[in-house]
Amino acid sequence: MTAAPTTGTLGPDSDLDRVFALAQQLRADSIRASTAAGSGHPTSSLSAADLMAVLMTRHLRYDWADPDQPDNDHLIFSKGHASPLLYAMFKAAGVVRDEELTTSYRRFGHRLQGHPTPVLPWVDVATGSLGQGIAYGVGIALAGRDLERRPYRVWVLCGDSETAEGSVWEALDRAGHHRLANFVAVVDVNRLGQSGPTELEWDTDAYARRAEAFGCRALVVDGHDLAEIDRALTVAADGTAPTVVVARTVKGRGVPEVADREGWHGKPLPEEMADRAVAGLGGVRHLTVEGPRPPAGRPAGPLPGSGGAGPVELPRYEVGDEVATRVAFGAALAALGARPEVVALDAEVGNSTHSEEFRKAYPERFFQTYIAEQQMIADAVGMAVRGFRPYASTFAAFLTRAHDFIRMAAVSRVPLALCGTHSGVEIGADGPSQMGVEDLAMMRAVLGSTVLYPSDATSAAALTAAMADLDGITYLRATRGAYPVLYAAGEEFPVGGSKTLRHSAEDRVTLVGAGVTLHACLAAADELAGEGVRARVVDLYSVKPVDAGTLVRAARETGALVVAEDHHPEGGIGEAVLSALAPSGDRPAFAHLAVTGLPGSGGTEELLDAAGLSPAHIARAARALLAR
Amino acid sequence: MTAAPTTGTLGPDSDLDRVFALAQQLRADSIRASTAAGSGHPTSSLSAADLMAVLMTRHLRYDWADPDQPDNDHLIFSKGHASPLLYAMFKAAGVVRDEELTTSYRRFGHRLQGHPTPVLPWVDVATGSLGQGIAYGVGIALAGRDLERRPYRVWVLCGDSETAEGSVWEALDRAGHHRLANFVAVVDVNRLGQSGPTELEWDTDAYARRAEAFGCRALVVDGHDLAEIDRALTVAADGTAPTVVVARTVKGRGVPEVADREGWHGKPLPEEMADRAVAGLGGVRHLTVEGPRPPAGRPAGPLPGSGGAGPVELPRYEVGDEVATRVAFGAALAALGARPEVVALDAEVGNSTHSEEFRKAYPERFFQTYIAEQQMIADAVGMAVRGFRPYASTFAAFLTRAHDFIRMAAVSRVPLALCGTHSGVEIGADGPSQMGVEDLAMMRAVLGSTVLYPSDATSAAALTAAMADLDGITYLRATRGAYPVLYAAGEEFPVGGSKTLRHSAEDRVTLVGAGVTLHACLAAADELAGEGVRARVVDLYSVKPVDAGTLVRAARETGALVVAEDHHPEGGIGEAVLSALAPSGDRPAFAHLAVTGLPGSGGTEELLDAAGLSPAHIARAARALLAR
Repeated sequence: MTAAPTTGTLGPDSDLDRVFALAQQLRADSIRASTAAGSGHPTSSLSAADLMAVLMTRHLRYDWADPDQPDNDHLIFSKGHASPLLYAMFKAAGVVRDEELTTSYRRFGHRLQGHPTPVLPWVDVATGSLGQGIAYGVGIALAGRDLERRPYRVWVLCGDSETAEGSVWEALDRAGHHRLANFVAVVDVNRLGQSGPTELEWDTDAYARRAEAFGCRALVVDGHDLAEIDRALTVAADGTAPTVVVARTVKGRGVPEVADREGWHGKPLPEEMADRAVAGLGGVRHLTVEGPRPPAGRPAGPLPGSGGAGPVELPRYEVGDEVATRVAFGAALAALGARPEVVALDAEVGNSTHSEEFRKAYPERFFQTYIAEQQMIADAVGMAVRGFRPYASTFAAFLTRAHDFIRMAAVSRVPLALCGTHSGVEIGADGPSQMGVEDLAMMRAVLGSTVLYPSDATSAAALTAAMADLDGITYLRATRGAYPVLYAAGEEFPVGGSKTLRHSAEDRVTLVGAGVTLHACLAAADELAGEGVRARVVDLYSVKPVDAGTLVRAARETGALVVAEDHHPEGGIGEAVLSALAPSGDRPAFAHLAVTGLPGSGGTEELLDAAGLSPAHIARAARALLAR
Repeated sequence: MTAAPTTGTLGPDSDLDRVFALAQQLRADSIRASTAAGSGHPTSSLSAADLMAVLMTRHLRYDWADPDQPDNDHLIFSKGHASPLLYAMFKAAGVVRDEELTTSYRRFGHRLQGHPTPVLPWVDVATGSLGQGIAYGVGIALAGRDLERRPYRVWVLCGDSETAEGSVWEALDRAGHHRLANFVAVVDVNRLGQSGPTELEWDTDAYARRAEAFGCRALVVDGHDLAEIDRALTVAADGTAPTVVVARTVKGRGVPEVADREGWHGKPLPEEMADRAVAGLGGVRHLTVEGPRPPAGRPAGPLPGSGGAGPVELPRYEVGDEVATRVAFGAALAALGARPEVVALDAEVGNSTHSEEFRKAYPERFFQTYIAEQQMIADAVGMAVRGFRPYASTFAAFLTRAHDFIRMAAVSRVPLALCGTHSGVEIGADGPSQMGVEDLAMMRAVLGSTVLYPSDATSAAALTAAMADLDGITYLRATRGAYPVLYAAGEEFPVGGSKTLRHSAEDRVTLVGAGVTLHACLAAADELAGEGVRARVVDLYSVKPVDAGTLVRAARETGALVVAEDHHPEGGIGEAVLSALAPSGDRPAFAHLAVTGLPGSGGTEELLDAAGLSPAHIARAARALLAR
């Protein structure tokens, strides 16, 4: 080992002793950053420093000055808590200054957050919920190979603990299934989790067997032998197979006081100890890395299928025809395929959600994700990161499976259009396992989300199209059954708006519905009209943002509101209406009809009636309010 | 093959030709039931009929007359859509009449629902959300071996499509890790999913490699060769290893018109076709099965650790001391260990949630589930099925990972106590990936749930204890930081109640908080008091059910309400309060403070202030209401 340099520039041809000096710098900087912050995960950073030093010096093709270079490789820290290491790499790349690293990490208002988020231009996706980064990496690799057709590779650093998450195996299954030869996961097998040894400890062969069983190539290495790492990363990048590098490492490597010791997860070293550790690592260094560059920026090639791009011509429906909103969703999605950035994904129920219409029209932009809702969202996020507009669909009930991924997608600030079909007890005979009656609560509570719930095919098609231009997470709730078309083709449905379908100066009550309950509200209004009671009817197709103005006016003018929703009472339309009314001084009499019991199987009308959502129930609730 | 019998009784010693006659009966009955219902999944039933005929005749030890016999084996249809087959088995077992099968399946008000639920005494858990039944099976097997120490085995019938769910691999990982030799999964590899071929089609070796890589024994069989099935099930039940029987089958087997054909998933055969199919299967039969019986009912043995059972002595805290609610949760959980039915599970963060206190006191009733939240819930559900009272804990944010499992646990009607710690932006430096700001919306919308959110250690301990006696899904939201103890030991906290901490006849505004915001409300009340404004302060520790009476009274008496919550605005405390007030005529001025933006890292006070949840913000909101 030659004397370790403390400044200078490393490149792909640098000797491994210089790369080792870089690794020690990454270690020292990880310690310095976290000790200065007073929190963070230095030991989880130390275990992976050698792996990342070799990667960034010799393999990661990245133009640090231009993070938007389309052929840049992608680096994702699935073990997001190792952010000190990632940020130390950014310092080594020359894009984060030492001072920023040691004074702003984890501090309020600064960008070097506790876990990486895309507020940093070199970070694609937010991580920190374990088992997700690898899944997003697969999505980006899929976008790169099959949509963009660009030569970039995706490198993911995973922890060993996080492989307990099933989502990791959904991801590797996908990588194997698609033979994503541009995908490399590096698993940092440091043996220790947060609260004790991991399940598999240092059984690197077990990790390798699992990766291979899921269709990936596995390479087992000593994660502190730089030459071995270098050889493995060279093989991993040979473009022949998705690869999992299983690296046996030591948590806290390089600092004898904490190395391989329990009780040091997520704890910064106390100052004195940190000083000793940094000294032991060779002191503070300021090495800079100029690693491999991506191929000289090719212009973007044509997107797949974009040759046939034309204007979006939404399907048109005749008022009165009975059409399911899920059918309109599928037809509109297929129409949107004229926009080459639109892609569609479905979790093996495309013939129920009708996303299969898109598949038929644009098979090269349709992704069958099988019954793996988490990976479906992750694939979609990866594609969104690369500039596509993904639509992902399954039953509303099964989107709950991907709740944590949707939550994190909101932190990543990507655009993501979700469609959940088969909402509510309306679905009938399949019973409660298939009934989405929590989805509005889930989707409304997602940061910055938009929640849409059309009642007819015209509005479903229009709102499906609108989602392609909205930021953040958008959700379209669709219904299984066919109901009459209410609106003529061409009608506009602004997000945040509503439609008032029955209206007169004599209205004494307002019935608010969306989806299937809107049709019940219309029938209830007819029933009430027969008794001489005029009822206003509002189609609240935009659940978030909600049309507070119309609701407040209705409350003021009619004095009574009945809200009916095919959803549990909590977090859905009823509470959206109450929140919209709350700031105003207007306090209508209020009734809220929702699904409060456990439904079973049955016919749609039987189940809606049993849930208290039939026209008769709505009319009865209105009468009760008026009788007060 | 001898002439097929159409009546009579089969037992473990019956020839396989009689077992084949039973399989054909199960097929015919699956077709008859679904055709009569007009919906359902006959072809998915047909593929598994031979497997189940052999299982129930020769291997499943079950006293059909006494489903509560504690040594009965457990049979779970993870592919819940194959309910026609399961119900046909119930007919063959003599517990469901042919008439019920052919007239009530999937009909309103009847128990033979589209997917099995525990309204049937022979069904342990609700299935129908794929990839879950196998996970619950692992939980029951774990309970049987490690908690009950009973000889029952758990048999799970899985579909092949559902193995795309990561949860399946979490489950098999658990089975392998614990060497659950009482666990057998039978995978019905019929090659066809809902919308096309499965990912692995008939690559049974790939399934076997995966199962083995996760620590299970794999046995590949022809799923229509009864002798081969019989041998495999014999091996599987030898008590030496968790086993996955990978059975190559044909979807629609036995009905040439649909066998191995696409387009027949989830479709009943039209009547004429059904008649032909039943005739081809040998017509309607009424064979009855008396399979193996469980060992003669032993009395229940002592539960592990119950030797030390004594009275529950909750931890006591001094008013004013600063104690985190998560610390009190852990201490109370450990105290509850005196009740032998209480078990605890944690997803590798027990030193953060403080469930490790239970582990230290009752290691034999603590289950480390590693970072696999779905399996954590599934293990807990399995244990609840067997009469235990599981407490499962992790960060509030990461419970979203298990949302679909929690949803289904509610359908299964099991008692399940969940604790989510590190809620809200309060956690500080770790940043948004670790902040639970959607959990109240998620948990409130769960059917029949109870949602608790203590502000101090005394109430946290009391509510933790209360959860052990509540039905359904209960959720305790806990906070990371330490805050002053507000209540003296012994104070009672009824579920559905609240505490009014500041109260006078001159109150002009009510401040409603829970958890960390209650402390901010108290400080805001002090600030307002300094200005001569008396503010009522309500600790809304019970978010669902909520104390409507106190809220309505406060609205009436003070005329203005400020609700502050460390959660997104949708579906949480603010909307719970609005829902509680809605039926009354009282309409206070209302302000709702919640987390509306994307937080970053920072200090707790900085982040709460940035989210508008500091005492100053609360006081300002109160002043604004009063100035109206």
